Amino acid sequence: MSPPASPGEAPIDFWFDFASPYGYFMSSRIDAIAARHGRRVRWRPVILFAVLRALGLPPPMGHEAKRTYMQHDFERSARFLGVPFRRPEAFPAATHHAARAFYLLERSDPRTAMAFARTAMRAYFTEGADLGDPMQIAQWAREANPQLGEAADFAARLRADETRALLASAVEEAVRAQVFGSPMIVIDGERFFGVDRLPQIEAHLEGNL
Amino acid sequence: MSPPASPGEAPIDFWFDFASPYGYFMSSRIDAIAARHGRRVRWRPVILFAVLRALGLPPPMGHEAKRTYMQHDFERSARFLGVPFRRPEAFPAATHHAARAFYLLERSDPRTAMAFARTAMRAYFTEGADLGDPMQIAQWAREANPQLGEAADFAARLRADETRALLASAVEEAVRAQVFGSPMIVIDGERFFGVDRLPQIEAHLEGNL
Repeated sequence: MSPPASPGEAPIDFWFDFASPYGYFMSSRIDAIAARHGRRVRWRPVILFAVLRALGLPPPMGHEAKRTYMQHDFERSARFLGVPFRRPEAFPAATHHAARAFYLLERSDPRTAMAFARTAMRAYFTEGADLGDPMQIAQWAREANPQLGEAADFAARLRADETRALLASAVEEAVRAQVFGSPMIVIDGERFFGVDRLPQIEAHLEGNL
Repeated sequence: MSPPASPGEAPIDFWFDFASPYGYFMSSRIDAIAARHGRRVRWRPVILFAVLRALGLPPPMGHEAKRTYMQHDFERSARFLGVPFRRPEAFPAATHHAARAFYLLERSDPRTAMAFARTAMRAYFTEGADLGDPMQIAQWAREANPQLGEAADFAARLRADETRALLASAVEEAVRAQVFGSPMIVIDGERFFGVDRLPQIEAHLEGNL
């Protein structure tokens, strides 16, 4: 039950990785910006490492010079944007279970999936919660949808072939869309890479860019 | 004859490559921002390719996915910032002569060097002028300083060992400062990569970041 889009308007795609600080920062902003312009957002978590490997690109923090910069910048950008942030000790983290949970939830209700994603990222990026633990993920999923049933059953479904296929399909779509980083916002085919592009995204939606 | 800095305040370093569109965009903004906060800017052109090679990083447009994005984004970002821009047919261009000319001029007067750099980038990025041609560069240098003497003499000095050493020294300094892209702004040790960081640079100078 996704919110209705304006006639003829496709949703805005929000590509991200659950363990990407810049993706987390974007997640705190993009829905409100879209809503102000009568648009809805389609959240698309991926395993960025897998997308980059398919595109033939190195991981974003693979080089010391960039890693040093980013580790300082995460906290600076969080302050600048006013987003609560504490760099997790386990960073980066494996995000395939979280992304699979998202797509599993999304099949029934995109809003539940988005609520789950917000809870998971907030817990990871402010309390250092274990983003890779299927049982922890199942608990967050149940917070988003109390009718979900037993956490252990949901955790088991994260390993099912059918669930894996949902995420694999999203990763393939990201490779086709050349999602070379997190976050990437796509509005009517126009791509914006990075949370720094919020002002350009606003200008584009206002018809001024 | 550089403008006086406030007591105890080091200049803001502005690292860039003459053929970097994002560096050109930054060049249109950084001096005015610094001046509003009583700071001066030390322009530091480098051969980005050489800095990246020394750091073990690939060229910024070496991969198709990023190249496609950037070629579209150059024009979009120019519109967003209100900077005149037409992507040169000869892009990217060799920038060692332009950078050497800058440091040669800077020894006598940093303001002349900055005026030369503005003229050269404006001509390259709006008219497609030949940024690699020593005689063209010498003419821009004479526009910045009419007392400079014959253009041919200045062009010849661009090839002198002493001039090469000035640029080599700047490249070495950039490698030490881990300048992994253009533009990079360094304020009191705090680094900001990319023209997208103008709002953070302003916030930092205002003491709000």
